Amino acid sequence: MFDAKKEVEGIVQFIRDYYEKGHLKGAVLGISGGKDSGVVAALFCKALGPENVVGITMPCHTTEECARDAQLVAEKYGFELINIDLSEAFDAFHRQIEGLNAREEDLRNSDINFKPRLRMATNYYVAAWYSALKGGTYLVAGTSNLCELYVGYFTKGGDSTYDIGVLNEYTVEEVIKIGEYLEVPEKVLYKTPNDDLSSLTDEDKLGVKYSEIAAYIHGEEVSPEAREKIERLHASAAHKFHIPTYHRCA
Amino acid sequence: MFDAKKEVEGIVQFIRDYYEKGHLKGAVLGISGGKDSGVVAALFCKALGPENVVGITMPCHTTEECARDAQLVAEKYGFELINIDLSEAFDAFHRQIEGLNAREEDLRNSDINFKPRLRMATNYYVAAWYSALKGGTYLVAGTSNLCELYVGYFTKGGDSTYDIGVLNEYTVEEVIKIGEYLEVPEKVLYKTPNDDLSSLTDEDKLGVKYSEIAAYIHGEEVSPEAREKIERLHASAAHKFHIPTYHRCA
Repeated sequence: MFDAKKEVEGIVQFIRDYYEKGHLKGAVLGISGGKDSGVVAALFCKALGPENVVGITMPCHTTEECARDAQLVAEKYGFELINIDLSEAFDAFHRQIEGLNAREEDLRNSDINFKPRLRMATNYYVAAWYSALKGGTYLVAGTSNLCELYVGYFTKGGDSTYDIGVLNEYTVEEVIKIGEYLEVPEKVLYKTPNDDLSSLTDEDKLGVKYSEIAAYIHGEEVSPEAREKIERLHASAAHKFHIPTYHRCA
Repeated sequence: MFDAKKEVEGIVQFIRDYYEKGHLKGAVLGISGGKDSGVVAALFCKALGPENVVGITMPCHTTEECARDAQLVAEKYGFELINIDLSEAFDAFHRQIEGLNAREEDLRNSDINFKPRLRMATNYYVAAWYSALKGGTYLVAGTSNLCELYVGYFTKGGDSTYDIGVLNEYTVEEVIKIGEYLEVPEKVLYKTPNDDLSSLTDEDKLGVKYSEIAAYIHGEEVSPEAREKIERLHASAAHKFHIPTYHRCA
């Protein structure tokens, strides 16, 4: 039986211990308006106090709904939320590529994955800024969960680059249980996850349900199709976890 | 005795084996005009043929000298070199930050580290673009060397994010020996390394010489001051190699 209260206490203690040991001050994270960032924000507010947490909304040619849902989370836990619109930086970059006569159809994957990398760079930008402003080190908090990690559903150098991770061993359903215990706003907690990059939901893109991934990870029964899909995704994500480097002769 | 020829043969075989096994096609890398990227470009051209290597110059409010030196490398080995100026994207991003009333003096570290992250994102952008354009997977080649890695002289999510690394176990002096064997243009190979971000050389910023770092790594005699400095840098870089994540209770 999953005990959300106990897990929350363990995570909060882990954060406090790490901050105390490293003489660290605060945390920065992107607030997408989805459950993972909502839960991580709640956990860091509980551990460090909301006055030491900074959330960032980073629209990039996206609708305003995400920013409104991020606001719900910030109001609930009382942390500062700043908005950094990346649309103009994205466009300025894109103009350079257009100047190289790239064909638009060849840039689909490039464009999709550029945004999380720009967001990662923005998280670190704000972390260094607030470290100077507040006179103590701010870390970038990660929001990856176990299901996404297992199937490699993240961008290398994007959402997978951070300084501290707390949800890395919880499936999507467990993250929701933690969020229920922390009273993350329902609109945020039960939102269908999508990457805000393509127009598809995560599960559409993956071709498998998060509940099936969780069942597989926990050694429970899943359909042969789901198993095959999950194992294929996991295997092809290996390069995201282990970067090959040459080992010298002598 | 360091045998550059043997090391080069080993690296070239390593690259070819990895590409063959993964059915991969090409390599993308940023060409700074310095020795590391010059040597890595030469190695990938040797392994894959210059027609499968794409170099990128990424000025960002920097002088034109770097781009000219990059051109020397591209001409020497015959690979395609494209220029993507990041100044406008940087400025567009910066305007958003200025709109938040940040004090310029609090943004020094933020600005310095934003550039390598923007360059990382650009490397991956071009890799995905060329993968679509050429119909085969392009990887981002890393240029980190052992001395930089040992003292943590790199930006997390910046120059340390790549798909394949070949110089990770060679000191700066060994990289130069490999470069001499590969006939990397002298102006590039013997240039004093700097980060192109601040106006200081690497050794000024680090407060220790690369030759001292190499000696330390190889267990040779170094001054007590150098030893103390190197060990302090190494220890404080630990967070760049091991990202703390919470391990659940049950």
